[in-house]
Amino acid sequence: MDSLVGKKIAILGGTGPQGTGLARRFAQAGLPVIIGGRSAERSAAAAKTLSDQVGAEVVGTDNRSAASQCDLALIAVPWEGHADLLTDLKPALAGKLVIDCVNPLGFDQKGAYALKVEEGSATEQAAAILTESTVVGAFHNISASLLGDPAVQSIACDVLVLGDQRWATDLVQELAETISGMRGVYGGRLRNAGQVEALTANLISINRRYKAHAGVQITDI
Amino acid sequence: MDSLVGKKIAILGGTGPQGTGLARRFAQAGLPVIIGGRSAERSAAAAKTLSDQVGAEVVGTDNRSAASQCDLALIAVPWEGHADLLTDLKPALAGKLVIDCVNPLGFDQKGAYALKVEEGSATEQAAAILTESTVVGAFHNISASLLGDPAVQSIACDVLVLGDQRWATDLVQELAETISGMRGVYGGRLRNAGQVEALTANLISINRRYKAHAGVQITDI
Repeated sequence: MDSLVGKKIAILGGTGPQGTGLARRFAQAGLPVIIGGRSAERSAAAAKTLSDQVGAEVVGTDNRSAASQCDLALIAVPWEGHADLLTDLKPALAGKLVIDCVNPLGFDQKGAYALKVEEGSATEQAAAILTESTVVGAFHNISASLLGDPAVQSIACDVLVLGDQRWATDLVQELAETISGMRGVYGGRLRNAGQVEALTANLISINRRYKAHAGVQITDI
Repeated sequence: MDSLVGKKIAILGGTGPQGTGLARRFAQAGLPVIIGGRSAERSAAAAKTLSDQVGAEVVGTDNRSAASQCDLALIAVPWEGHADLLTDLKPALAGKLVIDCVNPLGFDQKGAYALKVEEGSATEQAAAILTESTVVGAFHNISASLLGDPAVQSIACDVLVLGDQRWATDLVQELAETISGMRGVYGGRLRNAGQVEALTANLISINRRYKAHAGVQITDI
């Protein structure tokens, strides 16, 4: 896979705020998007709403069917269901490019904090389970509020892309740059994904303090 | 402590690249700087060089003496010596503001990676040892090459400041902003320091890929 042209993109967990927001932006960019969710009905309803708003065809179905139909899949499910979903969909995702966007975070009265992950990160957990897929981490630090807001035309931030295969990180950088304002930046190998996922806890702290929808940009590149 | 005016700043581990670079910038900003190091002679030599280049008085001595003389101390030692140094200097640092800048990283042929730290981060290790000091984490993601280059007038990046006391994070934000181009940004509580330290491994990967001296900026604030 060396180009996004004609590739079908599934967003698994696509009915959550982050997933729906990414689906909106990829659909706006003219990419064929399939929203996957636990319930095919809710996914179809979310897809219908997006189709009407964006004026592009978005389809919705259950996660398994979305995984089977796609060329590349974004994983945007809650951390709690991450390992189970991927184990379940391992055959459907074999041979495909899988982009993990999941942030393993806990929340308490003091705000958000990073959870310890045995494999080091959600992305590395995905890679450990999906041994027949190519796994890349990306889109961890993007405000779901901005992604999902139809009034927001452009989101100026960098998307750090983590992975061990150059063709795959290159393609995901290209995917990030289909979203107006965003730049895809190679951010290191899979073993350095954990801190990028966890940094979302800091952005949540920053959002609270500064009443913002913070993102990250890398300087000098 | 509610202002930097008249405060003496010690840089412990001030003869390393990060420490010397920070000393240079604070001296340029007109702040009284004491370089601490394992060897009082090497620290004095580094201080003399800086004094001559910057045209401001910088003094150099051993780490213990620097810790005793200062009002606030930056910890810029290698991770390997972090716990031992702080345990040793605990009495000298009691009642003072301590700013931890240490990144616990490993290096191999594939580049840099984050080390696991029992306390969660170098900053939290410092807080666990220095129970009579106020500990803040900051200056983790700043290029030592840029800090130390006399030809670089201004470094445009954000300094994420981590801490649990508002007066202390406010003061360290102010300290960051004495360096031309830098902005101090509250980045969350101490428990969220680990990923900011570890993110330096990603910046090292980015530097390799893009031939850059990368830093971080936060968007929408």
